[in-house]
Amino acid sequence: MRRVAIIGVGQSRFGELWDKSFRDIVIEAGVEALEDADLEGKEIEAMFIGNMSAGRFIAQEHISALIADYAGLASLNIPSVRVEAGDASGGVALREAFFSVASGLHDIVIAAGVEKVTDVGDPMEIMNSTIDQEWEAFYGATLASLYAIMARMHFNQFGSNEEDLALISVKNHRNAVENPKAQFKREVSLEAVLSSPYVAEPLKVLDSASICDGAAVVILASEEIARKYTDTPVFVDAVVQSSDYLALHSRDDILEMKSVKTATRKALKLARCSLNDIDVFEMHDIFTIAEILLYENVGLAKKGEGHYLIREGVTELNGDKPVNPSGGLKACGHAVGATGIRQAVEIALQLRGDAGKRQVDAERGMAVNIGGSGATAVVSIFRR
Amino acid sequence: MRRVAIIGVGQSRFGELWDKSFRDIVIEAGVEALEDADLEGKEIEAMFIGNMSAGRFIAQEHISALIADYAGLASLNIPSVRVEAGDASGGVALREAFFSVASGLHDIVIAAGVEKVTDVGDPMEIMNSTIDQEWEAFYGATLASLYAIMARMHFNQFGSNEEDLALISVKNHRNAVENPKAQFKREVSLEAVLSSPYVAEPLKVLDSASICDGAAVVILASEEIARKYTDTPVFVDAVVQSSDYLALHSRDDILEMKSVKTATRKALKLARCSLNDIDVFEMHDIFTIAEILLYENVGLAKKGEGHYLIREGVTELNGDKPVNPSGGLKACGHAVGATGIRQAVEIALQLRGDAGKRQVDAERGMAVNIGGSGATAVVSIFRR
Repeated sequence: MRRVAIIGVGQSRFGELWDKSFRDIVIEAGVEALEDADLEGKEIEAMFIGNMSAGRFIAQEHISALIADYAGLASLNIPSVRVEAGDASGGVALREAFFSVASGLHDIVIAAGVEKVTDVGDPMEIMNSTIDQEWEAFYGATLASLYAIMARMHFNQFGSNEEDLALISVKNHRNAVENPKAQFKREVSLEAVLSSPYVAEPLKVLDSASICDGAAVVILASEEIARKYTDTPVFVDAVVQSSDYLALHSRDDILEMKSVKTATRKALKLARCSLNDIDVFEMHDIFTIAEILLYENVGLAKKGEGHYLIREGVTELNGDKPVNPSGGLKACGHAVGATGIRQAVEIALQLRGDAGKRQVDAERGMAVNIGGSGATAVVSIFRR
Repeated sequence: MRRVAIIGVGQSRFGELWDKSFRDIVIEAGVEALEDADLEGKEIEAMFIGNMSAGRFIAQEHISALIADYAGLASLNIPSVRVEAGDASGGVALREAFFSVASGLHDIVIAAGVEKVTDVGDPMEIMNSTIDQEWEAFYGATLASLYAIMARMHFNQFGSNEEDLALISVKNHRNAVENPKAQFKREVSLEAVLSSPYVAEPLKVLDSASICDGAAVVILASEEIARKYTDTPVFVDAVVQSSDYLALHSRDDILEMKSVKTATRKALKLARCSLNDIDVFEMHDIFTIAEILLYENVGLAKKGEGHYLIREGVTELNGDKPVNPSGGLKACGHAVGATGIRQAVEIALQLRGDAGKRQVDAERGMAVNIGGSGATAVVSIFRR
């Protein structure tokens, strides 16, 4: 297997993009990435696209061919592969793209993620297609209610509380202020979070990521080619995917995300480093409780102690282990299938020193992208 | 890249499986494949699943995790990847699985295809999500009407006619009689096809594949491991994917399927053989005209001469170049995302000599799986 590097990154704005179509936003991100890498489209050998539910959001499947076509690459007849794993679709696309270069099959490929959700009335109902339809959704469970159960159990077992959750939201909103692509570039106060209405008690509106439109693209190349195109390659040291029981109730311990634990352990081994060596993180904070659970399952905190990290400021932008400098899913916006790639873009910008006022000092970064309530996890490690 | 072989195959029955759920049929095919390979589930290192539209057919995305879970593999936390490319989803899953073994990443993997379509009222409307929604479907085009345009143009330019199309249907139905997994194990007469009602003139009901339920699984392993498990490995010499403009009207010549041509050329090169060396074919006969166009675009016939192959019996079971010994999409049934894998299963059975009364004498076989009206093509070559 060869070393693989990110040589270009691009993102559309994240948010309610009423004036843009699915096609527009993915092309916008792609063009930005090509310009960033100083590449022409015809040098792309394959595309891997993460997307959760174009079938239901825009009544269009077969978006792999659509995107190759709208990118002006149809005449090249290149392979274009859509992958789907709920909101871990972006991470899985990154993995397939990574291995296509690492194995020597391709030299330069695109890994993209895209979702256009605002053309339907109830995107949250479609988000519920990431959980078990027959054994969860049919009985009235929603993605929010499952995370609410996890939050309640964490409160009861470990003494965390609604204020701990709110602090995650406050941090991620503060970070997003300096992210030009973020949906919510504004701070929220602790009081505002705590007084926002419940979505699924104890989770409130301001504990919840917004499901939004957006696209993100990274261009991957073999090390040799990367060196020709850029002085600041960002190496992809590992992309590991893992699975768990789909339904929350099937797991031995609902606060233990075995997919995340397995993927993190394998990724650190492949990248030949320890968690101490990772300087910056993007984590899948679809609800604030998810970020706390990820602190624990990735290993930044012991089990039951995740909330101390946010209380003590460890994961703030100026803390020891900054998490979600982009604003995370909460404040940058959760464009579902785009999120796994957007996380990789943010880590790449941080490692290149291109993150503007949200820049942290980092040599290595990690992205943690999960699908549904954790049945899929993709953990990636990057190095400058 | 290492050599890769099929060491086990399995299929559910194809058809209207009212008594079975999505989960049931994919597990049925998987168990058959594991038993065929004499493997235990815990030896599987990864899964790749082709599925077009579980989101719309059963309101469930994230089926990668669902299938790993229901296969009893959740405790192994293995990666499970769903890919989608319309009705070429199965072929694309085969490609991703193939490269995961060829590259050395994994030793034993599952490539599966599955679709459960009968739980919705209008599966054909969902099939239209494989064509361009904004520029074809929005204006009233359907998948059937696009193929009807191709048929009409072939008639006008090359003198083919409705009887030529009907002969394809008659052949494929005759072959399906001996396929225990086929949906329609019965012959149809030329008169019956010609007198069946039009779906989109000149295409009739009996020119059209049925959109049905079904699942198919192949187990892939590296050559070294394959030799341990079986005396009849079927080597996968090439799996090539290619793309074209999504909308039919964007292509220079709507009878020229550039995705198929490109993929076939590359596949033959990788497999180091010529079309003359291929003894048996499975081709994507979603409508009878598609099989004739594939004869031409694969290169079995010159452009405009595809219909002579069926008139002269060349592609019959006892002809020089048997096409669709399984009954094809027409008579075996088109379980959408399963089809690309089902084609691989049929070729493997033929090369192993396990095809029963539909057995042909073959050393090499080819599968041609396409998405929509041809925007994606996957061409695979197998050898015993």
